[in-house]
This record gives sequence, C-alpha cells and structure tokens, in this order.
Amino acid sequence: MNKNKTYTIYGINNAKAVMQSSKCIIKKIFLDYDGLAYKDLLIKQFISNKSTNYIIANINSISDSNFKDKKRLQGIVIIFSFLGVEDSIEDFFNNDANDCILILDQLEDPQNLGQIIRTSECAGVNKIILTQNKSVKLSDSVFQVSQGAFSNMSFYVCTNLRNTLNILKQNDYWIVAIENSIDSDNWCDIDLKGKIGIVLGSEGKGIRRLTLEDADFKATIPMQGEVNSLNVSATCSAILFERLRQIIK
Amino acid sequence: MNKNKTYTIYGINNAKAVMQSSKCIIKKIFLDYDGLAYKDLLIKQFISNKSTNYIIANINSISDSNFKDKKRLQGIVIIFSFLGVEDSIEDFFNNDANDCILILDQLEDPQNLGQIIRTSECAGVNKIILTQNKSVKLSDSVFQVSQGAFSNMSFYVCTNLRNTLNILKQNDYWIVAIENSIDSDNWCDIDLKGKIGIVLGSEGKGIRRLTLEDADFKATIPMQGEVNSLNVSATCSAILFERLRQIIK
Repeated sequence: MNKNKTYTIYGINNAKAVMQSSKCIIKKIFLDYDGLAYKDLLIKQFISNKSTNYIIANINSISDSNFKDKKRLQGIVIIFSFLGVEDSIEDFFNNDANDCILILDQLEDPQNLGQIIRTSECAGVNKIILTQNKSVKLSDSVFQVSQGAFSNMSFYVCTNLRNTLNILKQNDYWIVAIENSIDSDNWCDIDLKGKIGIVLGSEGKGIRRLTLEDADFKATIPMQGEVNSLNVSATCSAILFERLRQIIK
Repeated sequence: MNKNKTYTIYGINNAKAVMQSSKCIIKKIFLDYDGLAYKDLLIKQFISNKSTNYIIANINSISDSNFKDKKRLQGIVIIFSFLGVEDSIEDFFNNDANDCILILDQLEDPQNLGQIIRTSECAGVNKIILTQNKSVKLSDSVFQVSQGAFSNMSFYVCTNLRNTLNILKQNDYWIVAIENSIDSDNWCDIDLKGKIGIVLGSEGKGIRRLTLEDADFKATIPMQGEVNSLNVSATCSAILFERLRQIIK
C-alpha cells in the first residue's frame, strides 16, 4: 500500500465519513466557515477539536480546477491518505461464519465502482478485491460516488486473480461467479451463506474464461426484458441483498 | 401525450432499441457509414430497408453541441418521437396476475431514473409512474442512461399521486412503499406477488408523508453498514429482483 498517496473528497457525507473512519488520515481541510458543512454539528465539533495533524485552509485557496464549482462542494474539501488498501489477501480473513468478499474482475468504470462500494457497504460486505490490469483504480471520483462508504471498506488489488481465488479456496471460501450462461443456476437457488467470494465481471466482457473455470458455482439473474443489459452495480445490489435475505431468514 | 416532442439518442444499443420498438417513431438518423454502428447487422439492415418516414443525414452535419464528441456516438444519432407516455393511468391496467407498476415519488436525478428504467426492464417491470412536480422529466439523458430499455417501457406522469394511488387500489393493486422506518417490515417478508404498485421516494427526502399514508405495506431494506445511504436505483434493483424471486419460486 502506498501510504503517501492522498485522495481528495468534498461534501458533507464524504467529509463526515472520512472524519469518523480510522482508515482515513486527514492531511488538510479546505473549509468555508459560512458554508453548509460547517453547520453540521459533527463536522463543527471535529474541527473545533483542534489537531496539529492536519492543516485547515480557506476553501477559496484551492488551486485544483476540479473544485471550481463551489456550490457542489457544500463548503468542505478534505485531502487525506487512505489505509484501507491491504498488502496481502491474508489480511482479509476472519472468523465470521458468513464472511463475504466481493471480487471485481477487470471492472472498468469509476461510477460503477463507486456505486458498488456504496451498495456493498449497505449490504454488509466490507471487502473488495480489484484486479490490477485493465481495471478501474481507486480514485477521488470513485470515493466521491461511494458517498463515504469507501471509508468502511478494505480493498486488495491482485495481480493474478487465479492465484488469489486459489488462496480464497484454500481458506474455505466458496467462489460464486455471476455470469449469464446456460449452465448457470438462478441467483436465488445458490446458497450464498457461509464463507463466500462473489465474482462480478467487467461492463463489456463479463468474467474472463479462466476466472469462470475457478468458480465453484455460477449464478445468473434471468433477464425478463428485451434489452437484457443489467448494469453491473444493479447486479451487485440484487445479489448482495439476496445473500442478506438468506442470512437473516 | 405530446406526440410532437422529439428525443435524441446515440450509440449502438440505444439505436437498435429505438429501431426495434413500436413506441419509437424515427424522424432522422445521423449516420457515419464508416462508423461502428453501421457495422452492426441489425442497424445496417434497418437502414438498407429504405423508408420515406425519416431522413438520413451525415453525422458530421449535426449542429447540436451535445454531440461534438464523435467517438462516444459510435457513428449513429437518432431523433425520434416516443409513444410510450400514456394519457391515462387506465392504459396501464391488464390481466397479468403479477402485474407490477413502479411509482417514483418526486425522484430528482436523471442518472437514477435512467438506471431505474434499465433495471426495471431487466426485472420484468415495464410500467413507471412519475410525478409531475419537483421531479425529473423524461429526457435525452434519461433515455441514454437506460441503454435502450426505455423503448420497452410505458410511463404515466401524474399531477396528483394520491388520486393515482387510489385508482390503483380501486383496481386491485396493493401499494408497497419502500421506506426506512421502524414500523416497516423487511423487504423479503412482504408478499410482492400479485398486482402491486411499488413506491420509491426521492434521493434526499424519501417518500412524502401523505404518500406513505396511502400505502398498504411499508418495506425496508435493513442497512448493515455505517453509511446507511443506499442509492435509490440500487434499492430498486434489490426490491424488483426480490419480487422476481418470489414469483419464480
């Protein structure tokens, strides 16, 4: 993990999430004392607990042209480093009988990754494996779209997905690939409880063939319409809340 | 319905959907004969079946500055009128024992509406009620985001949602409001089969109080994380595929 890399987010939801997360080390806060964010009690209290760990500056002193549209900033921009990227897949493992790891095989779109992080956090899944090549990276815009949910997540970026899946299997995780193919079972007919890794593919190409070969189960959500093109973040929502349903039932 | 209003979409998926839909009356096609779209067999065949109902023009003749970025157009832009907006809610009713109508109470964001249309079509729900005031309108960008799914949908825009919900109830639809409140039941404990209207609220404020009072059931998806902010289109996916699960079980 590169602990020197910093990210920048804005807005009340993201700011509160960063302030409350042990995984975010704040370096600098750009603040508008007359803005919306400073009217939020939690934010006001956080800032009044003066800390020497970070600098507070006037929001008008931002030079980055990405933050020219002051209105959407809601009066706060935060620069921070993120400790949520693990060096080793072993750091993911725990004793939760229903532990779930989401695996994204060459996902490409930052908007989708941000929404998937947001949905996963709401569905009780806090660990995501990304692939390194031809894949979207964690970035300011991914974190922004996640509406603060990233701050409760752990990530692992793997260079060889097959190796990583094998390590998961050796550690008693079942691998379920979500893939629309004729030999897939319906998503709700598969047992999603227990230790499980759920694999979603890229927007255009789905899951790679070799990844599919390593899966213990293949699940499909049967399309009911003419268009047959469910967005990957909508797929993620359907599958993770089906898992939640099975667990709480 | 204003039959003179036209919409403009681009790209292969949307173009094919418009060409195949009886609800879309094509007025003009801007085409790049060397572009990606014209390599698609269905599109090529559609265009070779010359029709006097619409004009074909060179894609470089588009004056609209929204279409300056030629690459994302994939070589095709279509102007069309859309017959999928019903004049009366009665046009929605049919004899399907599991008929489902999605109701969006003052949804605001075009991106969310586009994703909801796309997800609904995949989940077998083809009718959406929108509210007129303080609500997102059907637009080029909504249709674009839906990836062609809009072309299989019917819409009704109501001026008074309470009246509309009452008409639905008089026609034997149960109304289920998706609302995170303490007296809501878990989403998977509610019978979503049969004739049903599912209500989703706006991004910021949820469902209005008076709308909630008219609901027969209130359903919640219990949030498992710290952030507790599930996107409305992700909520839509979770609830509509839970409905599908109950139907196919």
